[in-house]
Amino acid sequence: MNVRQGDEIKHYRTVWMEGTTVKIINQHLLPDEFRIHSCNSYLETVESIRDMTVRGAGAIGATAGYALAQAAVESFNLAHEDDAMYWKSVSDAVQRIKMARPTANALFDAVDTVYSNMSTFGKDTNAATLRSITAAREYADADAEACRMIGQNGADLVQRIMLQKSLPSVSILTHCNAGWLAFVDYGSALSPIYELKRRGIMVNVLSDETRPYNQGSRLTAWELSNENVDVEIIPDNHVGAVMAKGLVDLVIVGADRIAANGSTANKIGTYTVALSAHQHMIPFYVAAPLHTFDFSLRCGREIPIENRSPDEVKWVKGVDENGVRTKVRIAPKNVSAMYLSFDVTPYYFINGFITPKGVFDPRDIVTHLAKEPEKAQPVYGRDI
Amino acid sequence: MNVRQGDEIKHYRTVWMEGTTVKIINQHLLPDEFRIHSCNSYLETVESIRDMTVRGAGAIGATAGYALAQAAVESFNLAHEDDAMYWKSVSDAVQRIKMARPTANALFDAVDTVYSNMSTFGKDTNAATLRSITAAREYADADAEACRMIGQNGADLVQRIMLQKSLPSVSILTHCNAGWLAFVDYGSALSPIYELKRRGIMVNVLSDETRPYNQGSRLTAWELSNENVDVEIIPDNHVGAVMAKGLVDLVIVGADRIAANGSTANKIGTYTVALSAHQHMIPFYVAAPLHTFDFSLRCGREIPIENRSPDEVKWVKGVDENGVRTKVRIAPKNVSAMYLSFDVTPYYFINGFITPKGVFDPRDIVTHLAKEPEKAQPVYGRDI
Repeated sequence: MNVRQGDEIKHYRTVWMEGTTVKIINQHLLPDEFRIHSCNSYLETVESIRDMTVRGAGAIGATAGYALAQAAVESFNLAHEDDAMYWKSVSDAVQRIKMARPTANALFDAVDTVYSNMSTFGKDTNAATLRSITAAREYADADAEACRMIGQNGADLVQRIMLQKSLPSVSILTHCNAGWLAFVDYGSALSPIYELKRRGIMVNVLSDETRPYNQGSRLTAWELSNENVDVEIIPDNHVGAVMAKGLVDLVIVGADRIAANGSTANKIGTYTVALSAHQHMIPFYVAAPLHTFDFSLRCGREIPIENRSPDEVKWVKGVDENGVRTKVRIAPKNVSAMYLSFDVTPYYFINGFITPKGVFDPRDIVTHLAKEPEKAQPVYGRDI
Repeated sequence: MNVRQGDEIKHYRTVWMEGTTVKIINQHLLPDEFRIHSCNSYLETVESIRDMTVRGAGAIGATAGYALAQAAVESFNLAHEDDAMYWKSVSDAVQRIKMARPTANALFDAVDTVYSNMSTFGKDTNAATLRSITAAREYADADAEACRMIGQNGADLVQRIMLQKSLPSVSILTHCNAGWLAFVDYGSALSPIYELKRRGIMVNVLSDETRPYNQGSRLTAWELSNENVDVEIIPDNHVGAVMAKGLVDLVIVGADRIAANGSTANKIGTYTVALSAHQHMIPFYVAAPLHTFDFSLRCGREIPIENRSPDEVKWVKGVDENGVRTKVRIAPKNVSAMYLSFDVTPYYFINGFITPKGVFDPRDIVTHLAKEPEKAQPVYGRDI
């Protein structure tokens, strides 16, 4: 998507490969500084995943794929013609990359995909190495294409809702960052918004700031303003009030993991948004690529939720009046704080899933997506 | 209530008068620094109301009362025996004090109360001045006593709920700061919690941080930890998740204004808490002294809601790692933000009002409080 730097507008992906260098948009520094981080070895790329220079399921996956391609090149240069040594080195890299963020599903998926593309070449390590580079690129392209399709299907859905309700313009509330920065391009929850804008639909966005990491005020607001989408940040506790005032036509959020019954784990606060939307009869949609659906989990209760450090709540990062990056403590030293990273929204508060294959009712995902994914047909949410 | 300074524990009110000096706990500096601010003239006291060194309905009211007493002393010294000059000077002060915070109801109430106590003395300006000091003190005492009674009635209520539900301990969620810092002593929403602690009941509190001003993480957490009450700060967006996890037995919040139908304006986010509590069938109570009920407003829709500056959302105040007070920007410069200071919780989400006179069902407040306040009988909420 586009990045404005002064008067210039330039297109970027979150991650790409130039020669044997992996390049990443440094998400630590946004929104105050736009800087490309170069990883010259696969270990540097692994470190950028670990330290969250790159974040978001799709973006982590693509980066991990590129890391393995880098590792293949390095192994090839190291092993010369010794194919045993080559495959040993590649296998080591596979393990190391997988350990970078132990819970990121997309990371395993990407590494396994690239590796299975290479592994058939056996003694032809030159061909295996070339294939790894192509496979990593294909993986990133597939992520971008899936997100582009989410945009098409989501925009179709929103236009249908606008028609049903005779809305001349549409106001969408979102939570956290499920934009292109979290993927390779386009994003999940924000992709339909970009597509609506392209289609000339008047759209404005309320972006929850999403405490304690403020992904909404830092990343979502930055992304949308770069694309000239009207965006206003709201503190998370405004959710009920803005809905009661009639300022929200629908909600679109992303997802970290979706269980077989449709219950969805996403950034903490999503559940409270869903509760408020339900109370105000505002349609609530989850946008996600297919690998987010985890049919090994029967229901939302089986999704493990991570507890994080109280200090992440008590200290807030930003830039001071001189533009210097710093952090401030906003609570007494001796008091504890709770930070659940995710919460689970039950399927019955979700009107539909916006996927690359169409928009699905939560009650149909098992039939259509799990059992016969190739026969999946769009089923619009019943309760809009 | 108590303030811990090192190993020492000392009792304080938020505001009091020593000789002709008004002393105020400086709320700008909490929780990182506990400092008493001395106002040596009535104009200094007015300034401390205006610049929010003192905040909260009850505390503002008492401070305004003391300011008028100070003004009376100054007028007496200035006018000598000239009673016309004295009353002219006092009247000017009344106007000036009322302008300090133009929307604070308690401020008008306090000034009018002290003034009507003085005004009967006519030419005896000495007696009028002495009476003003006593009246200001009485006003502050009455505020403290009302809050103490809220504590008694609220603690009785909580113990009833604990008995009904066979709870061995109780977990209470609160929003913003409706503690003793917002009044002269005890507070409204926190007063029952202090009383429960005194009665030996095991009580713990989840304190919403209450963005963007963080009154919950700054003031409520500080107050409760000084009284050795178990308190944990949660980001506002955790509300739904902690209720779904069964971590909340009941909610008690304060109120800025309550309309005749029971709908209640309170700090932004209160409505979202009420929605979540309703969904999880968790009792939701509003604690408030009687002057919070405004029977001139038929319903919540008539309560005016103030919009505040986007910068108050985008900049977060705190102390840096060196203990220096500073602020950081957490959002892109060019993006706007919304800050509604209050929201309105409809009466049908409120189980009851905890008042100095007892606990009232929202559907009964007109009958009991407005029409025949002297006959008001406690009516416990029907829906617990």
